[in-house]
Amino acid sequence: MPSNDTVLLTSSPEHEEHIYELTEDGQLHHSQTKRTRVYKDGSTIDWQHEEAAERKRAQQLRSQAGARGLVLPLIESSKLWFIVILTGIGIGITGAWLDVLVKWLGDLREGRCSYGFFYNQVACCSGLDPGEICHEWWTWSETFNVKTLFAQSLLQCFIYVILAIVFAGSAAILVEAYAPYAFHTGIPEIKAILGGYVFDAFLTPWTLLVKAVGLALAVASGLSLGKEGPLVHVACCMAYMLSRFFVQFRYNEAQKRKLLAAAAAAGVSVAFGSPLGGVLFGLEELDTFANETDVMWRGFVASAIAAVSLQWVNPFGTAKLVLFQVTNASDTWRAFELIPWLALGVIGGVVGSCLIKLNVEVAIYRRNSYLASWPVLEVICVSAITAGISYLIVFSRVQASELVANLFQECDPTKGDYHGLCNPTAMWENVFLLILTATVKVGLTAWTFGMMIPAGIFLPTIAIGACLGRAVGLLTQGLYRAYPAAWIFLSCPPDPSERCISPGFYAVLGASAMLGGVTRMTISLVVILFELTGALSHVLPIMICVMTSKWVGDALGKDGIYSVWIAMRQYPWLPPVTYYDKGETGAHIMKHLDELVVIEDEESSVSDLDNILENHDFNGYPVVRKGELLGFITREKLKQAIRSLFPADTLERTHKCSFSARHSQLPETTRVDLSGFLEEAVLQLRKEVPQELVVSMFQKLNLRRILFTNGGKLTGMTTKRDVVGLLTSHFPHAGALSQETHYSSGQ
Amino acid sequence: MPSNDTVLLTSSPEHEEHIYELTEDGQLHHSQTKRTRVYKDGSTIDWQHEEAAERKRAQQLRSQAGARGLVLPLIESSKLWFIVILTGIGIGITGAWLDVLVKWLGDLREGRCSYGFFYNQVACCSGLDPGEICHEWWTWSETFNVKTLFAQSLLQCFIYVILAIVFAGSAAILVEAYAPYAFHTGIPEIKAILGGYVFDAFLTPWTLLVKAVGLALAVASGLSLGKEGPLVHVACCMAYMLSRFFVQFRYNEAQKRKLLAAAAAAGVSVAFGSPLGGVLFGLEELDTFANETDVMWRGFVASAIAAVSLQWVNPFGTAKLVLFQVTNASDTWRAFELIPWLALGVIGGVVGSCLIKLNVEVAIYRRNSYLASWPVLEVICVSAITAGISYLIVFSRVQASELVANLFQECDPTKGDYHGLCNPTAMWENVFLLILTATVKVGLTAWTFGMMIPAGIFLPTIAIGACLGRAVGLLTQGLYRAYPAAWIFLSCPPDPSERCISPGFYAVLGASAMLGGVTRMTISLVVILFELTGALSHVLPIMICVMTSKWVGDALGKDGIYSVWIAMRQYPWLPPVTYYDKGETGAHIMKHLDELVVIEDEESSVSDLDNILENHDFNGYPVVRKGELLGFITREKLKQAIRSLFPADTLERTHKCSFSARHSQLPETTRVDLSGFLEEAVLQLRKEVPQELVVSMFQKLNLRRILFTNGGKLTGMTTKRDVVGLLTSHFPHAGALSQETHYSSGQ
Repeated sequence: MPSNDTVLLTSSPEHEEHIYELTEDGQLHHSQTKRTRVYKDGSTIDWQHEEAAERKRAQQLRSQAGARGLVLPLIESSKLWFIVILTGIGIGITGAWLDVLVKWLGDLREGRCSYGFFYNQVACCSGLDPGEICHEWWTWSETFNVKTLFAQSLLQCFIYVILAIVFAGSAAILVEAYAPYAFHTGIPEIKAILGGYVFDAFLTPWTLLVKAVGLALAVASGLSLGKEGPLVHVACCMAYMLSRFFVQFRYNEAQKRKLLAAAAAAGVSVAFGSPLGGVLFGLEELDTFANETDVMWRGFVASAIAAVSLQWVNPFGTAKLVLFQVTNASDTWRAFELIPWLALGVIGGVVGSCLIKLNVEVAIYRRNSYLASWPVLEVICVSAITAGISYLIVFSRVQASELVANLFQECDPTKGDYHGLCNPTAMWENVFLLILTATVKVGLTAWTFGMMIPAGIFLPTIAIGACLGRAVGLLTQGLYRAYPAAWIFLSCPPDPSERCISPGFYAVLGASAMLGGVTRMTISLVVILFELTGALSHVLPIMICVMTSKWVGDALGKDGIYSVWIAMRQYPWLPPVTYYDKGETGAHIMKHLDELVVIEDEESSVSDLDNILENHDFNGYPVVRKGELLGFITREKLKQAIRSLFPADTLERTHKCSFSARHSQLPETTRVDLSGFLEEAVLQLRKEVPQELVVSMFQKLNLRRILFTNGGKLTGMTTKRDVVGLLTSHFPHAGALSQETHYSSGQ
Repeated sequence: MPSNDTVLLTSSPEHEEHIYELTEDGQLHHSQTKRTRVYKDGSTIDWQHEEAAERKRAQQLRSQAGARGLVLPLIESSKLWFIVILTGIGIGITGAWLDVLVKWLGDLREGRCSYGFFYNQVACCSGLDPGEICHEWWTWSETFNVKTLFAQSLLQCFIYVILAIVFAGSAAILVEAYAPYAFHTGIPEIKAILGGYVFDAFLTPWTLLVKAVGLALAVASGLSLGKEGPLVHVACCMAYMLSRFFVQFRYNEAQKRKLLAAAAAAGVSVAFGSPLGGVLFGLEELDTFANETDVMWRGFVASAIAAVSLQWVNPFGTAKLVLFQVTNASDTWRAFELIPWLALGVIGGVVGSCLIKLNVEVAIYRRNSYLASWPVLEVICVSAITAGISYLIVFSRVQASELVANLFQECDPTKGDYHGLCNPTAMWENVFLLILTATVKVGLTAWTFGMMIPAGIFLPTIAIGACLGRAVGLLTQGLYRAYPAAWIFLSCPPDPSERCISPGFYAVLGASAMLGGVTRMTISLVVILFELTGALSHVLPIMICVMTSKWVGDALGKDGIYSVWIAMRQYPWLPPVTYYDKGETGAHIMKHLDELVVIEDEESSVSDLDNILENHDFNGYPVVRKGELLGFITREKLKQAIRSLFPADTLERTHKCSFSARHSQLPETTRVDLSGFLEEAVLQLRKEVPQELVVSMFQKLNLRRILFTNGGKLTGMTTKRDVVGLLTSHFPHAGALSQETHYSSGQ
């Protein structure tokens, strides 16, 4: 029976364009429907309607005759799982191959493999006994056999810088030319989208492609950026692309978002090799799974599958999810170590918020200076500078990830000593070098994060933190070696040559503290970090550091880096923070009646409505009769109504529009019945309710608007944007980077 | 300045009893206040008010002059963390010592240590070389040196059963006599309490003590029960006890509950040695941390600290959190194993829901039969039966935890073979024995869970699942050994003697599936299980089993065991499920105006109000004037008002009560102004809003009631209980075990 198929196809009345015919009695008759897209980019979706539509679809499916009623729902959910699983696998494999690509490009900056251009150094030198030097891998100076040492290093440095510029430049050009939304990390946008913001241009296949390729180039160019955030974006693009194939997602924004949430979790899971961290990230930072176990479960499945498929591709032959394995850190901690740990926490908090502030300043400067018009040039210059500096400072010459891995390692006589880090006599040099590296990286990161290029901020932050942490660790160790008998070190073995403090672990703590200061995440961060380092036994110190740095950071400025960017770009996103008012009521936040554009029932004519639509591009308009609220009509519906009236030439455009035909005074010949378009069940409050209740209703019920009435009379209205404005009011640069006045601004 | 201290003391106007004086103009003047307890057991708290009160307190603190304004908030939060940390440590240590006690009592049933009565078998036989037989540990027959084999086994069996009865009986007597609320698992009550149900009698120090001791006795008695759930209860009792010392918690129910949530997480963390599992349990099952990162963070800290202190006490010298270490399970899975895994999932789902149904039947039978009046006797009989049966069936003779540990072990020639489980020739015997054990345990568990004794259901479920899983594993292995060349086994090594299928891991999967079927938890379950077994690499199969069993189980009956008990005891708890209506609106769920007890403004006299209070013990009453809603007055406030009127003898009790003094028609001499007691900012909806919106508002905003108005006129009202009734309507036995008609029933 075809009717069933149409049932299957139409996801919600919202998404059909109704063609009406006007009968002589001024009554509209519904003749035919065709589907259109309702939400324009920049608007926010109406969760209630989307959910309702989905429910209706589900019911219609279940209510099918006999077997269909059982099978169809199964098919539906299997589609859902198909997308979830496919996204997981997809992002897992993508992540793995990005790693390979980055490694190869990165090595290319140093040299090439003699017997195969497309081998990276490891692959090229594989199959050698340990200790044997690798003759297959040629540095560039060997390739062009340059003899003199000076010329060699000059050539190396030259190629190093040139390739950096080439990689970064091409990435920037890709972004600039093909997918402007592929720049930056993408997490702020994802957060906004998951919160109900409509921004489909952000998730196109082009963006997916450019972001993936550009990311590889950007990371390989050695700029101070990471791949973590962008991977989340890539994962969401994948899920979005897949969702386009199924009507139930294509035409239901809420369902689509639930998919994207799962995809985001998978992205994190691949980025850090931490499936649990992915789920908790989605939970805490993206704040999506609240109260919806099934969505959370999807995220869990997606991220687990992503992790497994990453492990399966196994890019580097180490069948490990743990990226930065922490080796033999002494499992016992001494009481006195609490002091350096707390110190690290404080440092992380302070440096973290400095980084945020610096980044904001740079972003605003970039926006208002001539740089705005030369994005590619900026990228090229910055990459040149970065490459130059990195080449000079030994620690920052390698990929950030390699640096981190080395800093996390404990000193082990059997293994090689990384740039003399373990040389006790060279402590001060090392500390100086580490702090220098950290400082430089702070500056570079603050500038890089926000350029016209895919860039995540996790890895640089980890690197900075690791440097600082290692430095603190070295200092503590040095202190211990200097005064092994001091009372504070009594818990340590008396012989200073034995291990008592493990600086590698301090690097981990530094990284945690730094991340805490920059992102202000808590649990997900801890989980990610111990899944990243495999140091489950060390979870408590990590917690201490994260907590301290979060407290210190919050004292210096409430928002993490992502919230700051959301505020600057002015996305309609409600932070999940619990808002405290100072005794204000709804009256303070609502727009008063006289500021609103209201439709008077049976007063305003068709052409009046036309004018309203033209002059005020609001999201919708309250309908009142003699001050008493009848309901609310959204812009889209009103448009439909008007449009459906045009074909009827018989119609006087001076006819009055009646939204309450039942008890109408006007004669039927002089009015048009639009009551079918009115939603009467709008949420109403008295303006006396405390403001925080209003805010939390917006937060928890995902509302677009609340109407305030008193004894049935409309007194005012509050929209999501008003609440967002309220919640970001404390941030000075709110809206500094917003592109355009948004479609759904105002009421 | 003393005023500040009073500010510190009073947490919310709700919690003061106002003494008013009546001046000649009928105006009430506030003279003095003294604090009282507002919520009686059985009522539900008003989250909005509690939160508001807390906010007010916080503001008053922050607004202190100078240094006080900075220091006081710090002190406050330090108090909070003090409780959280102390609870963590406390529950960690308690859990550890409970283990020791149980081990000792359990061993006592077999024999005693020759040189020290208070040593358990392990401690007694410590310091022996492997293989050396332990002469210090005497079985009872050795103690009373009985010679003949028959007499020996008779004596052993006799003492075994007698001690079981003694332990179980004394536990039951303890519960019966001192703390009736210490019976059962406690998780349903905790869920209700965290949801806003007031039930302080459930958290008294006596309950804490009795539950802890009784738990040890109950577990040692070998009854088919576990310690996991009760530990959560114990943890909550601790937190509650500690919270009593600080006004900010004693007088604020919302804050108290946030503490309890953290404590619950800690309890789980200790029960399974899984800190993350604790957090996720609190998140998914208790559904408390939704949208509140700081609460979640507290839970995380508490559970981490609990786990660490458990590890620190380290009861059994194995410095491991992992309870049931899974050894050398082959990390590679074959495709064909998906079949037995899915089978396990289905089995788990089916058996799980059978267990639930059986348990419900037993509970209802117990309630309605003469058993209700002989709880202790019942416990004694059941323990005797259990002991008898367990002694006969070899697998169930040991503690359930020991059984599980053995079933999870892979066969390993070097290690001992547990009751010939690894003997390939005895496969059919083993399978039969395992299934028999499982069946018996299902029956016993269904009966035990709900007796007058502390009892958790996690461990028995795990044991049942482990038996079934191992059985399936053995069968699969047997099949493989029989037909090693079959095409389905091609992925296995051709030589059947080599390891291809690891039955021990199948036991783990069986346990997961069974737990999934009984509790219907998902993520927290997976996390708990892999933290329990340390098998992070096995997370995917576990997920598959849990998911399958949940699906199958949900098909056979929506609710998990805890929801079922909540429904039977009729606690006002809103399940976090997303409710789908069939197009109903608020009108269907609301009580209509004519069913409500309404106070007519300026109509009803003081004595009328008195009568209302006497005759209808509702939570509060809407106040209307000529049908138009003025606001809502809670029972407590109305009581206050009336009580405050009694002292004034000058007052005619026929005076009309006016709640809207501003625009009153009555002369001041003939009315009493009660407008001070009216809350005007009540949430109002139109009855046209869809029912699911009403439900989700109750769920997400933690409301107690919603008033329905139309054009300012009161049309009806819905309370939390109505919504609970709606959400539990599908469950036939709802309210079967509810003790009394609850205080806050009705409007």
